[in-house]
Amino acid sequence: MAKNWKATLHEVIYEADTPAGKLFDVVLLFLILASILLVMLESVNEFAEKHGTLLYVSEWIITILFTFEYFARIISIKKPSRYIFSFYGIIDFLSTIPMYLSFFIVGSQSLIALRALRLMRIFRVLKLARYIGESNNIMRALNASKIKIGVFIMFILILCTILGSVMYLIESGEDSGFTSIPRSIYWAIVTLTTVGYGDIAPHTALGQFIASIIMILGYGIIAVPTGIVTAELANQDKEDGTLHLNTQSCPNCAAEKHKNKAEYCYNCGESLNPEESD
Amino acid sequence: MAKNWKATLHEVIYEADTPAGKLFDVVLLFLILASILLVMLESVNEFAEKHGTLLYVSEWIITILFTFEYFARIISIKKPSRYIFSFYGIIDFLSTIPMYLSFFIVGSQSLIALRALRLMRIFRVLKLARYIGESNNIMRALNASKIKIGVFIMFILILCTILGSVMYLIESGEDSGFTSIPRSIYWAIVTLTTVGYGDIAPHTALGQFIASIIMILGYGIIAVPTGIVTAELANQDKEDGTLHLNTQSCPNCAAEKHKNKAEYCYNCGESLNPEESD
Amino acid sequence: MAKNWKATLHEVIYEADTPAGKLFDVVLLFLILASILLVMLESVNEFAEKHGTLLYVSEWIITILFTFEYFARIISIKKPSRYIFSFYGIIDFLSTIPMYLSFFIVGSQSLIALRALRLMRIFRVLKLARYIGESNNIMRALNASKIKIGVFIMFILILCTILGSVMYLIESGEDSGFTSIPRSIYWAIVTLTTVGYGDIAPHTALGQFIASIIMILGYGIIAVPTGIVTAELANQDKEDGTLHLNTQSCPNCAAEKHKNKAEYCYNCGESLNPEESD
Amino acid sequence: MAKNWKATLHEVIYEADTPAGKLFDVVLLFLILASILLVMLESVNEFAEKHGTLLYVSEWIITILFTFEYFARIISIKKPSRYIFSFYGIIDFLSTIPMYLSFFIVGSQSLIALRALRLMRIFRVLKLARYIGESNNIMRALNASKIKIGVFIMFILILCTILGSVMYLIESGEDSGFTSIPRSIYWAIVTLTTVGYGDIAPHTALGQFIASIIMILGYGIIAVPTGIVTAELANQDKEDGTLHLNTQSCPNCAAEKHKNKAEYCYNCGESLNPEESD
Repeated sequence: MAKNWKATLHEVIYEADTPAGKLFDVVLLFLILASILLVMLESVNEFAEKHGTLLYVSEWIITILFTFEYFARIISIKKPSRYIFSFYGIIDFLSTIPMYLSFFIVGSQSLIALRALRLMRIFRVLKLARYIGESNNIMRALNASKIKIGVFIMFILILCTILGSVMYLIESGEDSGFTSIPRSIYWAIVTLTTVGYGDIAPHTALGQFIASIIMILGYGIIAVPTGIVTAELANQDKEDGTLHLNTQSCPNCAAEKHKNKAEYCYNCGESLNPEESD
Repeated sequence: MAKNWKATLHEVIYEADTPAGKLFDVVLLFLILASILLVMLESVNEFAEKHGTLLYVSEWIITILFTFEYFARIISIKKPSRYIFSFYGIIDFLSTIPMYLSFFIVGSQSLIALRALRLMRIFRVLKLARYIGESNNIMRALNASKIKIGVFIMFILILCTILGSVMYLIESGEDSGFTSIPRSIYWAIVTLTTVGYGDIAPHTALGQFIASIIMILGYGIIAVPTGIVTAELANQDKEDGTLHLNTQSCPNCAAEKHKNKAEYCYNCGESLNPEESD
Repeated sequence: MAKNWKATLHEVIYEADTPAGKLFDVVLLFLILASILLVMLESVNEFAEKHGTLLYVSEWIITILFTFEYFARIISIKKPSRYIFSFYGIIDFLSTIPMYLSFFIVGSQSLIALRALRLMRIFRVLKLARYIGESNNIMRALNASKIKIGVFIMFILILCTILGSVMYLIESGEDSGFTSIPRSIYWAIVTLTTVGYGDIAPHTALGQFIASIIMILGYGIIAVPTGIVTAELANQDKEDGTLHLNTQSCPNCAAEKHKNKAEYCYNCGESLNPEESD
Repeated sequence: MAKNWKATLHEVIYEADTPAGKLFDVVLLFLILASILLVMLESVNEFAEKHGTLLYVSEWIITILFTFEYFARIISIKKPSRYIFSFYGIIDFLSTIPMYLSFFIVGSQSLIALRALRLMRIFRVLKLARYIGESNNIMRALNASKIKIGVFIMFILILCTILGSVMYLIESGEDSGFTSIPRSIYWAIVTLTTVGYGDIAPHTALGQFIASIIMILGYGIIAVPTGIVTAELANQDKEDGTLHLNTQSCPNCAAEKHKNKAEYCYNCGESLNPEESD
């Protein structure tokens, strides 16, 4: 009986197949969005001064709801350590604890901004077939080209270190912001990626000449990662593999990505539908 | 007879197959461009002060012409509500009414800038085979990859929220413009899209380090949407489907995109060539 | 005999097949580069003040050499009007005349910067097989996709007009640079193309929110022209057509792009090798 | 015996096949990274003032280690001139000598920033099969399209010269930073590559209008290099040629890229495995 109650709770919290599970996920998503909004509004000074009490109370309400959810997740899973030390488990903990810590440590409340990380859960909630398929496609393309992109980024970093050092030698005397080599490297990255803030910009003729070369270089090599990913995506489009659309997660070990008609967990052998197996 | 008169008016106003219809569309296009120019010039202070009266009179002339056009459109269609609540109907109304409202509500005249939306009509007027074909091609490619791009933009937004929150924690003490989390998110978007205004820019070493990572990240992922659209366009080129070149719209329900040799509206069954059927 | 002399001059000046013709082109190229450098140096105040006389004399020497070249081109061609009113003829005239005009009209000398247009001639001089082939390839790809890109640019312009008008309504009261609709449209173009100077930037929360949408939009649609050209270039690579490597131009009508073994001008029937036909 | 000792040293220093060789390369890499870090930290004023002595001592330790490495490389190779005048030999010399020169010439120490160039050696150390394969792929794609990109960059430079001259004529009177033609060309490059610092920006209406055209132009032609590289990379993916994974370099002439099972140098005929051939 106790197991049945836990199994139902597990299905509601961890899965999105049943109406109750879907409702839970949607409510959770809205709570997360609301908590993000609260954190944002609190950081806006004019608003925080006017509605300070309202914000404080709302934040405590959401924190308490998140605390309940956190313990419900621990109770309803067979091996709690699986959840506690998982990616989402750590994020859930880090986004709930700062409010409680604020009683003991002044300023720890600002860590509440970490709650933004909970937004990642949006991807779990939106476990609709189409979205998974499409993002799987992108992920596979990025995965297949990650070594190419890694080599490319390493090359960019070395190039920026060299270019930054050269620009420091040229511009360090001027009043143009190249006050140290790390700052010059920062400038080289800002320029090569075509962001171009303009807070640091060369003043000497030689500096502007070299900056021009860097920009044209950056213009030319912006093509490389684009080319890599495009060539890979064009390949991916041809071989649209099978999708894992099953949203269940094992009540025992929290493993996911079960096959569409799986009855038992591929990882620990636990039945995925406890009620039926009773 | 009355019906014939309305049918002719309908053909002139709503279609571009006859010489009169083409002339009407071209004159309308020039009037729209002229009205946009007037709105622009009025917003330039030096010009508005010198030629205030000229601008005022011209604006009234164009507003009256637009009013005539609006009522002609309502009269010549069988079911006026179809036009009034259509996309173009609402735009036409919103771009004509502010001048009249300015008698009653001070300042409502500034809404006249909404007239720029009428420029959308340029796409209807330019209903030349080639342009439709080409833009159909782009539209189909964008349409086919809209879920992929949607997933991607959602990912970008979550990333910017997280990065903005982190940068707020690091830079909020400095005088570098990160005064609130929403502003920090705005900065993250400005940086990740490589726009880089420079009105907000990190001052601390740690902030610049994280900003560098964001930029290189942005440089890497600028490849993703490009790859998606390119792979799709390459596919589109192979399968250049049939084009809908028929510029007629139904005199009864204003439905468009009829087949090339259609005699009757696919939507309401009304004859598309009223004169002949008389 | 007179014809022979003119024919030789024509071959030296207009063609690059003979050693003398090649030498002429290379010397001309260096003269053009030198004249560009002179114009640049003269615009740098510190340099112009120090070496004013040197610059003045050098500029006159080059102007006189260009004058000789101009008249030689007119004399050696059978129908001078063909050259005088051609693209290069007009550029040659415009880049030579300002120095003479400076006697009569003060300030006309600054028009000498138009001499930069003569740099276009570099493409004629570099008539090497490989360069022509490669740039032909790019040109054909751009040509094949020019309607697609045209539709796209028109769409961008309309979008920028609408977005600029909306931002003007929102930000015009602030001290953020949105002083008129044309300036706001200028800002929209600066933002959508991800250039982002930062001289005009939104200050209000709503303005920054809409600007964020514009940037993400721009990030998404930067993919479109890239996709168009890439898909086209991938096609071009497959069908590397025959190249026009003949550098001769007709002594009578100055027509170019003759077939590789052409003996007579395809345009006017004049012999392309006058000496031999004598 | 002496030869054997040199051969072992050669294998440790120049190759990465043996455990000792790998260890040497990794230690060297860490030393290079440490030396870069030292140079960076020294350029940060606050840090240099506090820990000046520590930095000075560390720099001398690393310089002495680099000196030992430099002479070991000369001794262990049969033809030292091959190494001394090779690319890496010159970089090694230039990154070691400034510290010694600082006794005689004041300020030469700042040239130590050239040590960043030693980072290039990272590519030699990371001679793992996969990285070489992938970067070979990118290199071949860039190599195959280098003429296309060269033509493109030449075109960009000419365009920027012309646009810069035109903008100088328009904006030179204003206080907008267009003080000379070279600076205007610098601005044109900054704008066309979408970097957009904003230190120079047009103020006049005409200047902003032309700048808008340049930006939309730049937006359109950013597609060209991307298209070139993408089309090439898509080709490369199909024909993944054989890779040169042999990390040996000849003890006699330092030639590299030997075939996988090569016993003798393809360049000078020297045995690649001296111990065995003894």
